[in-house]
Formats: sequence, structure tokens, C-alpha cells
Amino acid sequence: MENVRTRYERLKARGLKLDMSRGKPGADQLEISKDIMTVLSPDDYIAEDGSDCRNYGGVDGIPEMKKLFAELMDVKAEEILVGGNASLTLMYESLCGLFPNKDKRKFLCPAPGYDRHFTITEYLGFELISIPMTAEGPDMLEVNKHIADPAVAGIWCVPVFSNPQGLTYSDQIIKELASMKPAAKDFRILWDNAYMLHQFEGEIPKIANLLKECEKSGAYDMPLMFTSFSKITFPGAAVSAMAASPANLKKMREHLIVQSIGPDKLNQLRHVRYFKNADGVRNHMKKHAAILRPKFNAVLKALSDNLEGKSVGTWLKPSGGYFVSFDTLPGYAKRTVELCAEAGLIMTAAGAAFPYGKDPEDSNIRIAPSFPSLEQLEQAMELFCVAVELAVLESKEQKKCIS
Amino acid sequence: MENVRTRYERLKARGLKLDMSRGKPGADQLEISKDIMTVLSPDDYIAEDGSDCRNYGGVDGIPEMKKLFAELMDVKAEEILVGGNASLTLMYESLCGLFPNKDKRKFLCPAPGYDRHFTITEYLGFELISIPMTAEGPDMLEVNKHIADPAVAGIWCVPVFSNPQGLTYSDQIIKELASMKPAAKDFRILWDNAYMLHQFEGEIPKIANLLKECEKSGAYDMPLMFTSFSKITFPGAAVSAMAASPANLKKMREHLIVQSIGPDKLNQLRHVRYFKNADGVRNHMKKHAAILRPKFNAVLKALSDNLEGKSVGTWLKPSGGYFVSFDTLPGYAKRTVELCAEAGLIMTAAGAAFPYGKDPEDSNIRIAPSFPSLEQLEQAMELFCVAVELAVLESKEQKKCIS
Repeated sequence: MENVRTRYERLKARGLKLDMSRGKPGADQLEISKDIMTVLSPDDYIAEDGSDCRNYGGVDGIPEMKKLFAELMDVKAEEILVGGNASLTLMYESLCGLFPNKDKRKFLCPAPGYDRHFTITEYLGFELISIPMTAEGPDMLEVNKHIADPAVAGIWCVPVFSNPQGLTYSDQIIKELASMKPAAKDFRILWDNAYMLHQFEGEIPKIANLLKECEKSGAYDMPLMFTSFSKITFPGAAVSAMAASPANLKKMREHLIVQSIGPDKLNQLRHVRYFKNADGVRNHMKKHAAILRPKFNAVLKALSDNLEGKSVGTWLKPSGGYFVSFDTLPGYAKRTVELCAEAGLIMTAAGAAFPYGKDPEDSNIRIAPSFPSLEQLEQAMELFCVAVELAVLESKEQKKCIS
Repeated sequence: MENVRTRYERLKARGLKLDMSRGKPGADQLEISKDIMTVLSPDDYIAEDGSDCRNYGGVDGIPEMKKLFAELMDVKAEEILVGGNASLTLMYESLCGLFPNKDKRKFLCPAPGYDRHFTITEYLGFELISIPMTAEGPDMLEVNKHIADPAVAGIWCVPVFSNPQGLTYSDQIIKELASMKPAAKDFRILWDNAYMLHQFEGEIPKIANLLKECEKSGAYDMPLMFTSFSKITFPGAAVSAMAASPANLKKMREHLIVQSIGPDKLNQLRHVRYFKNADGVRNHMKKHAAILRPKFNAVLKALSDNLEGKSVGTWLKPSGGYFVSFDTLPGYAKRTVELCAEAGLIMTAAGAAFPYGKDPEDSNIRIAPSFPSLEQLEQAMELFCVAVELAVLESKEQKKCIS
């Protein structure tokens, strides 16, 4: 049998050039939504409140867009603020607008998690605190320990098909989060429900509604929930939204009106006309699932065909979201990603899923199957699996040399 | 002859309901650009660098959009960063991204000026310093006095058809600005060229190019120039841009990438396909001019018909931009605006054009003719002129009572 190093060299010689570093939908997925580009005729620009979507006015979205997001997020329309093409911007601006004093504050980061969340809070001057993830959500013992510190201002959460593990929070954890009693009066849960409709196996997950749970527990102002159409229509030209208490939304509007003329209302109208209602969105998501399912299956098949039983790594099998989370043996993630890069495959940087980009175990690697074609993906995964093995082998050889 | 008070009561009884508080294009102007809504077919989404405008990627705009703005602003494409639907957001973010330390800093505000500029710097914690305007731009004696203070971080400028006076800076002033030697090393000129193509009489004004002048004087990093298509296509769904030194743009990209996924590239492509080149934009502006010209003429005619020779106020006659700046006798602007409001006409708040909303003379009122129809505008101006006279008359009557 061809040995690991020979296989690696052979694959490297193929001169693969592939970037799998981000959860970017493939061109095949973008084609699904192509009709949205022409759904508005030149005479279709009046929102249901009579406002002209082409003109200035409206800092938080047109009524029909609020209603559609309210239906999807299971909240009231008055709990919705519509943003521009990125919920990331809404998250950033909510931290700017709702925490005027960011001096010596800290933020809880369940890890592995989404690197761009952590970057936002780091950039804004928060100290990042890593919280371990369990299969049901963040480790609440750790969370409860930290929220006794009034400097701790909030926590990042991706409750459904978490980035990168694909885990969905249990209702028990959601209720515990909703009944937290943080020392900081301005404590906020940043709830990024980016993948709430993004299952590719089975049904859309039903989870407890954080905003409602918090309202019940007397902490209506604690949660800020976010979602978007970024991975539903066009990633670069979609519509985002935030759900929160009217008090939070009032502060957000006061903040946003200083620095914006409001989001693009024509693009909101385009999305409303295209989907009509929440069922329209849910049906649309079945087309994405049909494209993503074989890609995830290809990744999982490659992992089990090549690595099962070899004790070089473990992985999770998600049924939705955009990633497969892979753990090498401790100490091999960086080297594995390096070996991939040397052979033409760019993976997300090892450690990216941890605060400050530092994985204490150096073991987590995020695999993003959506962008490559199925054929490219199979080549990439063959290389990835060999790189995982080679990283371990190299180290054994080095140890031999030393001893 | 009907006396002023009787005329006011008669006009009030008409029950006018009109908001002239903002420089908002009228529906007739929006119709000019209606074909932009369908200019992209569902198969037209690839930018000239091969990137898919529907997908993620690109924090500062597609190449063809940069080229078009570069041509319009007479700079190099590498000096352009493309933003979202508001240059206001680019201005705000440039202050956030390029002045990490805003503690106890000050900002120069030529006044009367644009209220939303002043609001941004006030909101971000700058102390606002009012600088008198001359017919050729800001009073440079005052500017030069203040820039000796290292706390002074920058100056707001609207160099062409300034808001609200409609004045255009002379080349002499632009060169003096470019050769300033401010004590603050991070001093920036925020150059909002919102109306650079917005003449409705005569030719597009040619002014000295601030970025080039600053590069010559060794202060390449001092200017940040802004413009947008907001008052060219659709105010709520246009494209904005910033021109600056590559060093400034590098810092801006580093800032923007934290909090955005980049601006909507499809909307950029839409604008490029629609206009094709700078001449396309310039020709398009002639259609706006044809709509705005009679509106401005109606305002100026009403002022001269009703107020000329009465010594109750003075006004400027702009040949472009969005406003007519009117000065009552000192002390009557607030009352005039109040009298208008009581009769159903909302004007921009008196004082809005000054830092902290405080006009030291209480005399400046901004008239925004673009949004109303010609008929509404004539009614509004009849009322406005009577209100100006009545404000003075009331005060004379009060003085009589006291004496």
C-alpha cells in the first residue's frame, strides 16, 4: 500500500488551487435565487405604508419586511429592526450603540465559535473569555461563574447549527441563558441565528424562543437576536434583521440615524415580493438543502473512508449549517492546515474558531464544503485526510530521531 | 391692501400639509432613473475581475465602479473605496476607523453647514468649533488660528454648492486648505462633494482637486473626499464612494472588514451598466437640472416678488445644489419657522445649520425646494414670505406695547 508521504506528494503534484476557508455558498446555490434580480418592475416601489422605497426615509425597514422577519423569527413586528446586507454590521453597531462604555469590559465566547464574532468584540476593546461548548450549548457552569463579574458585558451564541460544530442548543440551555442574573445591568446575549433554516437533513430545528423566554424571566432587554437572508438569496446583496425589545430597538434607531440614511428599501421590497411569506422562504431552503446534502455527505464519507479507526482525529456529523468541525489529535491542527496549503488547499486558519485565534489544544479545523464543486470537494478531502495523517507521522518520525 | 396678519390667517386656513425640512428629491426626479431597476438581467452578475457580484467578497467595491468614481472625482482608481448606499456612513466610519482616539478632540465646522455632519462629530465626542463662511469658502484666518491647537482633528467641507448656502469654494481657498500645517498629525479634511454634478444653471463647476493639491503639498493623507449617487439615481438605494490616499484607504479597509461583508456589489454593477461612463452620469444630471431649475426659480421669484425692498431678510441665488439659504433679520428665524409650522409647513429647524443647532444670530433658514410639486412650492413660498414679515411685525407690535 502506498505510504502516507508518497500519497501526499502525489496529491500535491496535482497542483490543486482551492480556497475552502469560508462558508461561502457555491455558484449553484446562487442560481436558485436568480429571479429575485428581476422581480421588481420599474413601477413597483411603493411599500405598504405608502413610502417610496427609492427615496430617503425609514431607518429600520419597511413594514412588510419587518412582518416577514417577525414570522420567521417568531417575534412581533415591533420587535424587528431591518438592516442592510449583513447581520454582522447590525451586531457590530449594536455593540457600539448599546455599550457606550466599553472600557475594561469582557465578553464571553463559547468556543469553538465564529471567528468574526470574536474579532468584533476584540476590535471594540473587550477582553475575550473562552467558554467551553457542550453538545447542548455553552457550558453553563462556566457561564454562571463569569457573569458574577460586572465587567462581563455579554455572550456570543450561534444557537442553531453552530459555527463550526453544527450543534443546536437544547431548550434547557436556552432557558438557563434566559434566566441568568448577570452582575452587569447592560449584559446582552448576542444570538446569531444565521442558520435557523439551514438544515440539509430532516426538519427545521425548533428551539425555545430566547426573546420570549427572556421576557418571561423579566430580562426582556437581555437578548439581541440576529438573522439574515445572506445564505438564502445572495450573500453580498441580501437583507439582515435584528429582533429585540422595543427599548433596545429605540436605542439602535437613535444610534443608526446618526450614521446612516437607513438600509436599501428597494432590496427589501425585492425580497418580500420574491418570497411572499415565511413558507416561501422555507420552501426555497429545500433547494439549498438538495445542493448541500451531497457535499456534506462527500466530506463525511471521505473522513470515514480515510480516517475511521486510525485514531488521528474525530469529527461531528451535522445535519445543517455550513461546516464540519474536525479535531486532530492535540497539537496537529496548525501543521495539518500548513500541509494542505503547501499542496494548494486553503483551509480556515487553525485556531480561528477560538478567541484571539488561539486553540489551546491546537486541534480544531473547520471544513467548509459549500463553495467547491462536488468533484473539487472530493479531491480536497482526499488531500485533507492525507495531511491529517502526515502531520502525525512527521511528528512520530521526529520523535524517533530525537530518541 | 390686505395686511400681513390677515394674509397669514388666510393662508393658514388653506390647511397646507407640507414637509420641506430635508433635501429630498421629488418623485419626478426618481422617475428619471427607473430603468436602473431592470438593467441587470439574471445572468449579468460577473464583475470585470471575474468576481460574482452576488456572493461574498470585496470590501471596497468592484473595479468598474472604482473606475467610474475615479473618472467623476478626477483621481486614480486606487484612490477610491466604494461604500454602501450612503456616503454619510463612509464619513462616520472614517472618523471611527482613522481616529482611534477621539478623547478631548475638536472639529472645525464651517457654518452654516450640513446638520448631519455636525451631528456625527458631536455624537462621536468631538467638541464642535464654528467657523464663519465667506463667499469663497471657510474663513481661513479663523481656520489657521484653530489648527495650531493639536486637539483640533479636522474640518468639514462641502466644496461645491454648499449645504445650505449653495456656495462653491474658490481655488485659492482650496489651495490654502491643502497647504495648511495643522498641529495635529492626524488632521483630516472631510470633503463632502455631494453636489459636484448638481448644477441646474450653467456648467458643472470646475474646482481645484483637493487630493492632488494635498499630494503636491506633502499632505497626501490629509483629505478624505466623499461623493455618492444618492441624488443622481435613488436616494435610498444608491452607491457611495470615498477618495483618499492609499494609506488612508488601507486603514479604512482594515476597519470596514471587521464590521461588514463589503457593500452590495450587484447594486454597483447596476449603476455601472446603467451609466456606462462618466459622460453617462453627466448627461443624466441634465434631466435633474431640468426638473430642479423651475423649482428654484419659483422660490427665488417668490422671495423677490414678496420680500425685495422690505428689509426683512436676505438670500443667496444658487446655481446648483439642493437649497436656498435665507437670512431673516437677526432674532427672527425661530419665530418664522414656528409660524410656518403653525400653518402646516415644516421647514428645517432654525439653527440646524450651526454646531449644536444654535445659530448665534437666529437668522438662518434653509429652504429645500426639491420635494414639493411646483404648485405646492408656490403655496409654501407664499406662506413662508408672509411668515417672515409677520415675525418682524409681531415683534414691532410687542415693542409698541412695552413702550
